[in-house]
Amino acid sequence: NMQIYDEKNEISDWIKLNVGGKHFMTSRSTLLAKEPLSMLARMFADDNNVYLMNPSAKDSTGAYLIDRSPEYFEPILNYLRHGDVILDKNVNPRGVLEEAVFYGLDSMIPQLNHLVDKSMSSSGNNQSLT
Amino acid sequence: NMQIYDEKNEISDWIKLNVGGKHFMTSRSTLLAKEPLSMLARMFADDNNVYLMNPSAKDSTGAYLIDRSPEYFEPILNYLRHGDVILDKNVNPRGVLEEAVFYGLDSMIPQLNHLVDKSMSSSGNNQSLT
Amino acid sequence: NMQIYDEKNEISDWIKLNVGGKHFMTSRSTLLAKEPLSMLARMFADDNNVYLMNPSAKDSTGAYLIDRSPEYFEPILNYLRHGDVILDKNVNPRGVLEEAVFYGLDSMIPQLNHLVDKSMSSSGNNQSLT
Amino acid sequence: NMQIYDEKNEISDWIKLNVGGKHFMTSRSTLLAKEPLSMLARMFADDNNVYLMNPSAKDSTGAYLIDRSPEYFEPILNYLRHGDVILDKNVNPRGVLEEAVFYGLDSMIPQLNHLVDKSMSSSGNNQSLT
Amino acid sequence: NMQIYDEKNEISDWIKLNVGGKHFMTSRSTLLAKEPLSMLARMFADDNNVYLMNPSAKDSTGAYLIDRSPEYFEPILNYLRHGDVILDKNVNPRGVLEEAVFYGLDSMIPQLNHLVDKSMSSSGNNQSLT
Repeated sequence: NMQIYDEKNEISDWIKLNVGGKHFMTSRSTLLAKEPLSMLARMFADDNNVYLMNPSAKDSTGAYLIDRSPEYFEPILNYLRHGDVILDKNVNPRGVLEEAVFYGLDSMIPQLNHLVDKSMSSSGNNQSLT
Repeated sequence: NMQIYDEKNEISDWIKLNVGGKHFMTSRSTLLAKEPLSMLARMFADDNNVYLMNPSAKDSTGAYLIDRSPEYFEPILNYLRHGDVILDKNVNPRGVLEEAVFYGLDSMIPQLNHLVDKSMSSSGNNQSLT
Repeated sequence: NMQIYDEKNEISDWIKLNVGGKHFMTSRSTLLAKEPLSMLARMFADDNNVYLMNPSAKDSTGAYLIDRSPEYFEPILNYLRHGDVILDKNVNPRGVLEEAVFYGLDSMIPQLNHLVDKSMSSSGNNQSLT
Repeated sequence: NMQIYDEKNEISDWIKLNVGGKHFMTSRSTLLAKEPLSMLARMFADDNNVYLMNPSAKDSTGAYLIDRSPEYFEPILNYLRHGDVILDKNVNPRGVLEEAVFYGLDSMIPQLNHLVDKSMSSSGNNQSLT
Repeated sequence: NMQIYDEKNEISDWIKLNVGGKHFMTSRSTLLAKEPLSMLARMFADDNNVYLMNPSAKDSTGAYLIDRSPEYFEPILNYLRHGDVILDKNVNPRGVLEEAVFYGLDSMIPQLNHLVDKSMSSSGNNQSLT
């Protein structure tokens, strides 16, 4: 993992991700704090964590490669930062739900299911998508 | 094809695409698994695959060049990752349908046709576009 | 023009454009095939084409500079790729129309005029914009 | 200012802008022609122009730095290119109005005010925002 | 902090931010003027400011790293530039509110709360989200 020294020479633990071709910057604590047993957290856990997974390969800039949607990762990462599920109006909540399931972020799933239900009932005159 | 070694020195098979000027990162298995006989899969098939096509030229960063829309490629790639057709509300499903046909991803086409029909009937007071 | 050699050492004719600050990758045949006498086609025509225009200056990455909107160029380029005019719901068709006129892509204009009329009649309670 | 030589060795006058972190490419004539006395035009006027302002600092790529919104600059720059005020449906016209006032583009302001009024009356059941 | 010299050799005080992986350019005065005691202002205050906080670590391009949403930072930064809260129609005001609270920009919060209330009452037929 990349270690960046700030002006006081203290180690801060920034992590660069390459999700499907787009770069994101975040901190290890953001990835770990909210759901420590999620797959995403375990990819970046400390070496002494028994649930530690092998981290992903890195690209040439040192970013960890993740083969998933960058667009729907944004509300995932915001959730890890502040704990609220916030989607813009044009975003399909099913896309975010797929990512939450993939990353193992179980605490997001009930809210996302609620948004999916709401979005389905408001589109298409009560017709189900089947 | 680009080979990236992860921290355990195992080969992982990441592929960088330059679709119409935008970079995407994915894995060979994502491109191959869902529809092995599609044109997209055959571009990146193993050497011992009899349906193997010549891969595209590469740009200066090693990304395979594809002369198609980057925007409408995103839901295509997400479909290859998890198997669901998910479009945001402002995305024109006809744009994604064009790409699915181009890449030969036949399993996407019925769902996209359904979304195109739905989108046409909801816009413009039942008037056909002709 | 930039020539890129693929793995079989064949010349492929990729062209990089810098439209208003954004990079697009496409092929010469995409720019020429649909409307060979359009201004855009003539900028990239072969040397033996009597309608050949001087190509634009290039940026430091070898991309041809075009002082126009990148956003509204996307549906233009998609049209040249597959022949259909496809716009997302939030895109103002007047923006695409301006670019089609600038690039001299006459075959796009009737469809774009139709989309402009439709968009105007659906917004603002039949009031004209004047 | 950056001077780029085209293939005939003629000087073309391309200008690179860094607006709030995003790069735009345009020509000096686009910035000057429409409203020669606007602040934006005067930043890039010829040395013998009595209204010439000091141009901005440049970033490491040679782009002039402007501390303003990149998103709302796009329709501004398109207006300078072709003379029409064109906004996508999800763009808040107040954001573009702020930029037009900042850059001193007086000829845009009546149309933008009209779009702001229209947008306000259509949202929120005739309630004023106060 | 990065100091950039303009053509007259005067120091201008441009600051590059890396918010969640996206670069923004602004000036120190923009970050400080509107709300000098906010957390964001104190990160970039002068050395003789008693409320000065330790600035963040920097990335390899010299941009200050901030582990927050880039998308919802845009209207925040525009507010610091001109003093108006302006959101596009598809932007969820709750996302911007989270950032305003994080950065300690108290003067934005009443307007954002108003936009959140308005957005909630207009979606979903007066049903609360609960």
